Amino acid sequence: MANSEVKLFGLWASSFCHRVELALKLKGISYEYIEEELNNKSPLLLQLNPIHKKVPVLLHSGRPIAESLIILEYIDETWPELSALMPEDPYERALVRFWADFLDKKFLETSEEILRTEGKEQEKAVAEYRENLEVLEKGLQRDFGTKKPFINGETPGYLDVILASSSGWMKGLEEIAGQKFIEEEKAPLMHSFMSALCDLGVVRETIPSPDNLLLYIKNKREKALESAKKEA
Amino acid sequence: MANSEVKLFGLWASSFCHRVELALKLKGISYEYIEEELNNKSPLLLQLNPIHKKVPVLLHSGRPIAESLIILEYIDETWPELSALMPEDPYERALVRFWADFLDKKFLETSEEILRTEGKEQEKAVAEYRENLEVLEKGLQRDFGTKKPFINGETPGYLDVILASSSGWMKGLEEIAGQKFIEEEKAPLMHSFMSALCDLGVVRETIPSPDNLLLYIKNKREKALESAKKEA
Repeated sequence: MANSEVKLFGLWASSFCHRVELALKLKGISYEYIEEELNNKSPLLLQLNPIHKKVPVLLHSGRPIAESLIILEYIDETWPELSALMPEDPYERALVRFWADFLDKKFLETSEEILRTEGKEQEKAVAEYRENLEVLEKGLQRDFGTKKPFINGETPGYLDVILASSSGWMKGLEEIAGQKFIEEEKAPLMHSFMSALCDLGVVRETIPSPDNLLLYIKNKREKALESAKKEA
Repeated sequence: MANSEVKLFGLWASSFCHRVELALKLKGISYEYIEEELNNKSPLLLQLNPIHKKVPVLLHSGRPIAESLIILEYIDETWPELSALMPEDPYERALVRFWADFLDKKFLETSEEILRTEGKEQEKAVAEYRENLEVLEKGLQRDFGTKKPFINGETPGYLDVILASSSGWMKGLEEIAGQKFIEEEKAPLMHSFMSALCDLGVVRETIPSPDNLLLYIKNKREKALESAKKEA
C-alpha cells in the first residue's frame, strides 16, 4: 500500500523502532525511514518529540506519534482493515496489553544491568532476567497456550511484534552472559513463538544481523564498564 | 446498569483504584467493591494478580484484569455504548495515551520523593514536580486547548478520570510541600479542567475527603522519614 505521508524516525539498533517497522511492514504500509544518531539527534526529531526526545517517532500526515506501544496501537487503529495486530475481544486485548507492559517494565532494566556489570553483579541480573522469563512463559501458557503458530494466532500481532523485535538483543545478551535464555525444554511456548517469528522474512529483513548487533552491544558494554571503573 | 458480575479489589486511598471507580461510575456500571489491606492482601487478590500483587484488580465474569490504565481501556471497550472514555479518532487516542503514560512515568516517583524527604532534597523533588506540571500544562494546551469543560470535551473521559483521581493526593502533597501546585495564573488549563472535574458529584463521592487522605499521607510520610533516619 503506497503511503507517501508516513515517516519513521528510528535508530538501526533500537528494538523499539523494530517494533514499529515490523507493524508497518506486516500491514504493508510503505514509509520513509529516517535514521537518527543516538548522540546527535536531529532538530526535527527534538521538535517532533520534545517531551522524551527519543526514537521511534512516527510522522503521519505531518502529525507525530511517540512511544512504541502507543505507535503500535495507532497503526492498528489507523489501518484496521490490514492484518489486525490486536485481537477483537476486549479481554484478549487487555491480556495482550498486560504482557506488553510486563515486557517493558521487567526486561529493560535487567538487560541494561546485564550489559554493564560483571561477575556476581551480573549473575544477579541474569538470575532476575531468567525469573522474569519463567513468569512470562507461565503467563503465555495460561493466556495464549492454545494459539499457534503466533501469540496472535495464525498471523503475528501486537505481542508477536514486540517479542520478535527483542530477538536480536536477546541473542546479544545471551552472548554476553554466556548462556541460552530461551531453551525448548524450559520455555517450550516462548521457544515455539520465537522460532515461528524468526522464520518470517519480514522479521529477518527488519532485525539487524546478529554480528552487527553484537558488535554494537559489545561496544555499549565496554563503554559502560569503562565509565563504571572511572566512577569507582 | 445492574451488573452483578463486576467486582473491584481496591484500597480506599489509592488513586489508581479511584480511576477505575470513576470510570465504572461514569458509565453507570454497578459493581461490588472489596477493600484490601496494603500490608495484608487477601489470598484471592494474590491469586487474581500473581504478577504484580497489587490493586486495583477488576474481576468481570470471573476473569481478572490488572493495571489501572489497562482496566480503563477494558471498561471502555466492554461497555462502548455508555459514555465513551476514549475519543474515536486514532490520533486523539494516541495523544490521550501519551499523556496518561507521561503522568504515570513522571509524577509517581517525584511524588514519593516529596513524601519521604525534607529540606534541600525535598526542594529538588518539588522543583522537578513543578517542571513536569509545566510540561503537562503546555502539552494539554497544545493537544486539548480547544476542549471544554473536560479534556475529553463535554463529558469526562480517560485522561479526565486520571487527572481527577490525582486531585486528592495532589492536595496532600501541596500541604506537605507548603505550596500550591496548580495555580490559575501559571496553569490556567489544568486549573480549569481540575475545577470542572472536582465539581462533579461522582468525583466528590469517589475521592476520599482531604482530611482523611491527608492523615494517611502524613502517616506514610512519618514512616518513610523514620525508616530513612534508621538507615542513615
